[in-house]
Amino acid sequence: MAPTNYNYDYFNVSFPAEYVAYVEINRPEKLNAFIEVMWINLGKIINGLSHDPDVRAIVLCSAGDKAFTAGLDVQAASEGMLKRDGNDAARIANTIRRHILEFQDCITTLEKCEKPIITLLHGYSFGLAIDMSVSTDIRLCVGDTRFSVKEVDIGLAADIGTLTRLPKAVGNYSWVKDVCLTARVFGADEALRVGFVSGVYPSKDEGMKAAIELAKLIASKSPVATMGTKEILNFSRDRPVEDGLRYTAIWNGAMVQTQDVKDAVLSGLQRRKPTFSKL
Amino acid sequence: MAPTNYNYDYFNVSFPAEYVAYVEINRPEKLNAFIEVMWINLGKIINGLSHDPDVRAIVLCSAGDKAFTAGLDVQAASEGMLKRDGNDAARIANTIRRHILEFQDCITTLEKCEKPIITLLHGYSFGLAIDMSVSTDIRLCVGDTRFSVKEVDIGLAADIGTLTRLPKAVGNYSWVKDVCLTARVFGADEALRVGFVSGVYPSKDEGMKAAIELAKLIASKSPVATMGTKEILNFSRDRPVEDGLRYTAIWNGAMVQTQDVKDAVLSGLQRRKPTFSKL
Amino acid sequence: MAPTNYNYDYFNVSFPAEYVAYVEINRPEKLNAFIEVMWINLGKIINGLSHDPDVRAIVLCSAGDKAFTAGLDVQAASEGMLKRDGNDAARIANTIRRHILEFQDCITTLEKCEKPIITLLHGYSFGLAIDMSVSTDIRLCVGDTRFSVKEVDIGLAADIGTLTRLPKAVGNYSWVKDVCLTARVFGADEALRVGFVSGVYPSKDEGMKAAIELAKLIASKSPVATMGTKEILNFSRDRPVEDGLRYTAIWNGAMVQTQDVKDAVLSGLQRRKPTFSKL
Amino acid sequence: MAPTNYNYDYFNVSFPAEYVAYVEINRPEKLNAFIEVMWINLGKIINGLSHDPDVRAIVLCSAGDKAFTAGLDVQAASEGMLKRDGNDAARIANTIRRHILEFQDCITTLEKCEKPIITLLHGYSFGLAIDMSVSTDIRLCVGDTRFSVKEVDIGLAADIGTLTRLPKAVGNYSWVKDVCLTARVFGADEALRVGFVSGVYPSKDEGMKAAIELAKLIASKSPVATMGTKEILNFSRDRPVEDGLRYTAIWNGAMVQTQDVKDAVLSGLQRRKPTFSKL
Amino acid sequence: MAPTNYNYDYFNVSFPAEYVAYVEINRPEKLNAFIEVMWINLGKIINGLSHDPDVRAIVLCSAGDKAFTAGLDVQAASEGMLKRDGNDAARIANTIRRHILEFQDCITTLEKCEKPIITLLHGYSFGLAIDMSVSTDIRLCVGDTRFSVKEVDIGLAADIGTLTRLPKAVGNYSWVKDVCLTARVFGADEALRVGFVSGVYPSKDEGMKAAIELAKLIASKSPVATMGTKEILNFSRDRPVEDGLRYTAIWNGAMVQTQDVKDAVLSGLQRRKPTFSKL
Amino acid sequence: MAPTNYNYDYFNVSFPAEYVAYVEINRPEKLNAFIEVMWINLGKIINGLSHDPDVRAIVLCSAGDKAFTAGLDVQAASEGMLKRDGNDAARIANTIRRHILEFQDCITTLEKCEKPIITLLHGYSFGLAIDMSVSTDIRLCVGDTRFSVKEVDIGLAADIGTLTRLPKAVGNYSWVKDVCLTARVFGADEALRVGFVSGVYPSKDEGMKAAIELAKLIASKSPVATMGTKEILNFSRDRPVEDGLRYTAIWNGAMVQTQDVKDAVLSGLQRRKPTFSKL
Repeated sequence: MAPTNYNYDYFNVSFPAEYVAYVEINRPEKLNAFIEVMWINLGKIINGLSHDPDVRAIVLCSAGDKAFTAGLDVQAASEGMLKRDGNDAARIANTIRRHILEFQDCITTLEKCEKPIITLLHGYSFGLAIDMSVSTDIRLCVGDTRFSVKEVDIGLAADIGTLTRLPKAVGNYSWVKDVCLTARVFGADEALRVGFVSGVYPSKDEGMKAAIELAKLIASKSPVATMGTKEILNFSRDRPVEDGLRYTAIWNGAMVQTQDVKDAVLSGLQRRKPTFSKL
Repeated sequence: MAPTNYNYDYFNVSFPAEYVAYVEINRPEKLNAFIEVMWINLGKIINGLSHDPDVRAIVLCSAGDKAFTAGLDVQAASEGMLKRDGNDAARIANTIRRHILEFQDCITTLEKCEKPIITLLHGYSFGLAIDMSVSTDIRLCVGDTRFSVKEVDIGLAADIGTLTRLPKAVGNYSWVKDVCLTARVFGADEALRVGFVSGVYPSKDEGMKAAIELAKLIASKSPVATMGTKEILNFSRDRPVEDGLRYTAIWNGAMVQTQDVKDAVLSGLQRRKPTFSKL
Repeated sequence: MAPTNYNYDYFNVSFPAEYVAYVEINRPEKLNAFIEVMWINLGKIINGLSHDPDVRAIVLCSAGDKAFTAGLDVQAASEGMLKRDGNDAARIANTIRRHILEFQDCITTLEKCEKPIITLLHGYSFGLAIDMSVSTDIRLCVGDTRFSVKEVDIGLAADIGTLTRLPKAVGNYSWVKDVCLTARVFGADEALRVGFVSGVYPSKDEGMKAAIELAKLIASKSPVATMGTKEILNFSRDRPVEDGLRYTAIWNGAMVQTQDVKDAVLSGLQRRKPTFSKL
Repeated sequence: MAPTNYNYDYFNVSFPAEYVAYVEINRPEKLNAFIEVMWINLGKIINGLSHDPDVRAIVLCSAGDKAFTAGLDVQAASEGMLKRDGNDAARIANTIRRHILEFQDCITTLEKCEKPIITLLHGYSFGLAIDMSVSTDIRLCVGDTRFSVKEVDIGLAADIGTLTRLPKAVGNYSWVKDVCLTARVFGADEALRVGFVSGVYPSKDEGMKAAIELAKLIASKSPVATMGTKEILNFSRDRPVEDGLRYTAIWNGAMVQTQDVKDAVLSGLQRRKPTFSKL
Repeated sequence: MAPTNYNYDYFNVSFPAEYVAYVEINRPEKLNAFIEVMWINLGKIINGLSHDPDVRAIVLCSAGDKAFTAGLDVQAASEGMLKRDGNDAARIANTIRRHILEFQDCITTLEKCEKPIITLLHGYSFGLAIDMSVSTDIRLCVGDTRFSVKEVDIGLAADIGTLTRLPKAVGNYSWVKDVCLTARVFGADEALRVGFVSGVYPSKDEGMKAAIELAKLIASKSPVATMGTKEILNFSRDRPVEDGLRYTAIWNGAMVQTQDVKDAVLSGLQRRKPTFSKL
Repeated sequence: MAPTNYNYDYFNVSFPAEYVAYVEINRPEKLNAFIEVMWINLGKIINGLSHDPDVRAIVLCSAGDKAFTAGLDVQAASEGMLKRDGNDAARIANTIRRHILEFQDCITTLEKCEKPIITLLHGYSFGLAIDMSVSTDIRLCVGDTRFSVKEVDIGLAADIGTLTRLPKAVGNYSWVKDVCLTARVFGADEALRVGFVSGVYPSKDEGMKAAIELAKLIASKSPVATMGTKEILNFSRDRPVEDGLRYTAIWNGAMVQTQDVKDAVLSGLQRRKPTFSKL
């Protein structure tokens, strides 16, 4: 049932349950640090899953015990991103800008993906770990997670989404400024307390189990309903209430016509689990 | 002193204290489930209270021990909202869209109401309970409250405001996605921890007492000041800081001229309770 | 090394550590209540520090044991702000509006300041204490702090920024409405729980030490990186994710070219503390 | 076929052609000057026509030779709008604000109406004539029209929509400022040149004929297509291109499913006039 | 010098002058009507040119005498876009929505392209001709051009950008509504008068010559300056002035450092043509 | 009656009629080219006039026959703006950014000025001439005016407001792109046709007379009304219609209370010229 065309370097994609995809970042020998091909591949995988009718929920994890990701592979990045053609500061700026926009686009596929994505973080979760997870829908973590918005420690402002999405994801703007300006490491309890994650698990195994159970629960719902819920939440987060409501009205004008509503209501009355057709 | 013209089916409106209105949803035999006439009546009541000079704060509650509201009366809704004229999907979409916009407008009266509204939730608080309460100003609940953003369980994305307002009301976007995508039930402690409510009370009676005391406290302030506070907070929540400040400056250009400022300052100096004229 | 030109009435400016400025509000005999010259002076000081190459982080505190500030000096304000020329309500409105805009501009210098600002609150922290601190980046407080959005108690809606920035700074909108509509006093623990502050300290001395340590930590980072982090966070908080990302891309197109990136990366590899040139 | 329930004082509503409604402002003895009941009635009529399945395009005109409207009936307004309860400037401001919001809402029904509205202006077209017509979709006029944004001549800024919509309706902001700041009268040629109207006719009769022909042309199109066109244009005018495109995509996701597309395409191939079912 | 990798079906890409690319839509036997592969190819070509250092300005034209484009190939579209899997209206809506978003993305490459694009329209310029050209920077046309926002004639609202961008491109909103609601054909003179095009030429040959001359003129300027000018204009068109200015400040913070400024100023003084390095 | 404290180098300020200020840029020997002290002085003058009760309308002109302004004094600018401390591209970028923001702020005083400003352009009107005039309210010009958005000719994108405000000021976005990308010179007729100016006069003398007459006309109106008209137009231009209307409602809630309304209405009835008190 699972499609076989998700073979990309540095990623394992599997289907641990019906309608659930499991995407594992797989470069554990380097603490899952990212090199350019990895974010390009991630974008391709997520775009594929977004329209895959056999997928209704996605879990994003990393291989190995040590790290979700230590962030950008700085060595590779310093060779790649910073090799600059010529010495005209404006032209270099544009080269960098193009590069950032392309990188951002890859990570934004996580937010645009029609299917909800649950991220399980563990171990070192630095830099890009925050950029990526804050672009997904639900963040869970293991008790040993060591988070850091690491970028100021390498002399730059985080530019792949952390600074843009974090203020809208948690409820303590003072804390956001603190961790973004100091690059200090914080742990799972703190992440839970300020609202960066919504669940903490004692071990990676248990976290995985919980993430997959949650994905299965979401995958058991109408895919029309979960897709719409994600889309409207993200559209509304950024816009005035009037715009969110107006967008919702036409969205549901189309979507409420689904057979799923009838199936869901009927199943509810009959106390049985509904089956929904593919999306 | 209390006006007598708030007699609408399915609602009890009373005035338990000076300047405090008490709006009780009253269909307890059906777990206060909503049928169309109810949201229309709610809109009329709130619009009336908004301009009623004898009202300065409002408490919104529900009758009975079991439920604030179980949400939409699905049986009625499936007859009403889904009866579609013809079989042209576009025309059906427009009929549904019109219906949603009208429903949204009724619930938005809670947000637009000039007077602050405190909601006390208890028991089953499903679906529309979230849409309604998140449109009001202050949310309190009883310890036994069972909340759920229930809509995905009936195959649709919540469309009366929950998905639009919830991301701006609480400080854990991961949690927002979790409860909106899973429709799982959550309790009072969780609601308090993530910031959906700002107070939990052991019983409905004590919750009621607290809600009314809070309403009395607000009603003891200058109605010019509380109206402006609500309006500016809601305007600013959705807009850049520059716009919020510019709106505030002209707002107070008018409102600071009130006699209430002098009365409030003088009363403060004389350590007595000020009396403000009606609004 | 510290510049000597920050001598303004009612403020002490000192430099307790390299690149750290310490701004002390100094009118303790009046509970640090603000008169007009004070916010004008504050604006001048902050604008100066914003471009001062010897400054990379700022601590904002108040003199004395009793109060960060009791708010506006109401006596002075009632003489000043409310002395109205003539009796044409429109002209008075415009005079007040001009006054509010100027006052707001002074406080907004805290948000626009290129260097991060840490506020340490203690004792009475009423009215303007909220407006000011919510315009700064990181809020810490002493355990004895007594906060209040006090304005409704003097008959008006807060107009110097609290109502505009507070909903975006904390994660419990119900609580925001509660404290803004009731003017009730709340303490340090509550402020921490809802996310208004990100740290509480047992005494003013310890709070001061912590604030300065935090400032030193920030000041040890690349000033290019911390300036960009602050600017992008504030720009993004108010705008759709698309806009935040687009702004970030050109920002870092320029800023990533800094020598600081190389210095930071190299220092990291060599496990030594980097030195960055002035900004 | 035409409904008979559009009998409101000061308006004549007729149906000169299939699917075309003709709304005539009818107080010619007072130069069609508006009193409060008139804008309330206009709102009711337009809301009715918006959902009337027998209507696909609307023409808005005025009775008599002399004026589309001379604007607000100043005598009535000075009695009504300015009669103020008490002498607290803040409370008076709020009474006026409520009044303006209600008045604006009535006029905004023209913009929100699902069916396109063509306004034919003639003779005196002062004040409210601009507010109203700029809320409609297509503006035509007679050669003798004398336009004026008249409000500064009675000491106030236009507050029913002219200042908000005019900068987005014409392509010469310098001219907008000129006519709004001077209240000077301008004629049909000037209105055409700057883009305020899109057609000028030598006499009211010919204008009427043209307006009705245009309405008939629009009414001959798919009502699903024309409703969507109006809605998306208005939504997009006010928002970034990204938002307009995103709204369009879900809108047409629903609307392209209409039978009208097949009917229109087939009729096109067969070179016959299509017939569309009601909306 | 010209790259050879722009070989895509239905397009000719050539380089008539240094730094000038010429993109010709090439399906004249079908009036250049678009099938899906064409907009996908167009997107690829434009994305390539956007970063091609040998390109500084682009001319977009069509082959043949009869048409810029007659629009979508309706026959192909009715087979493709409307073939729907299953009969669940919601799932069909989502399929259509995905399709529209992908189509829009291809056309938006014209707006996002770093290099300015000049479109020369001639003959039939229906439907997609408007969507495409309004996404480009400068619109010129031949005297024989017959324009139409044709979509309502096939039962739908234009969804590839016309309704979103047209209100911001011309200065007569009444006219925009007119042509979008009636699908009537309009000519070159009218297009010039309302501001849809900025130049009209008597023949396709002369138009071509003018378009290429204009492209050469733009290509003779600093590519850093023209790229920035396009980007800032588009960013600002959609946003408040404050945001446009803030974006501009950091943009030029990077870009003013270019060697081109010195070269341009020096060449100006020396009255010779500057040479700029590639971008 | 005229204040005497507008003595700033490079500017003449006079008062040719009651309530009319005349600001003349005065560096004719250098074609009125701007050096830094000039835009700083302009900001100070305009801020002064904005609150000057003796001023109700302003005319902005330039001395001499040859030029409104040839733009930035490039020689001075190349010494000033481009002298960069050090060679860190990021630090240079920030220095430039600070400089641009300060320069923009000075020019934005023209837009924020409470009193309407009429600009009369003549002769060379290059670069900064566009930035400045597009920030004012009404643009008139002499037949000999030679306009140019000149910045690309010196290798940069215009950064003082032209690219941000021009798309919202005229109704031909294709033309905007044309003149901004080519830096070509255009004349008075073209400026009138596209809507950049709203009046053309045969000579500078006649233009001056017309500008002053227009200023006198505006100055004869209620200053409360003209201030509000300018403010609401500018606020609304940049924001959705809903926001513009909401801002208008509270604005006029304050401002309609002015005595000016009564005076204006009464004067109208009595056919005499009203007198308004100062603002």
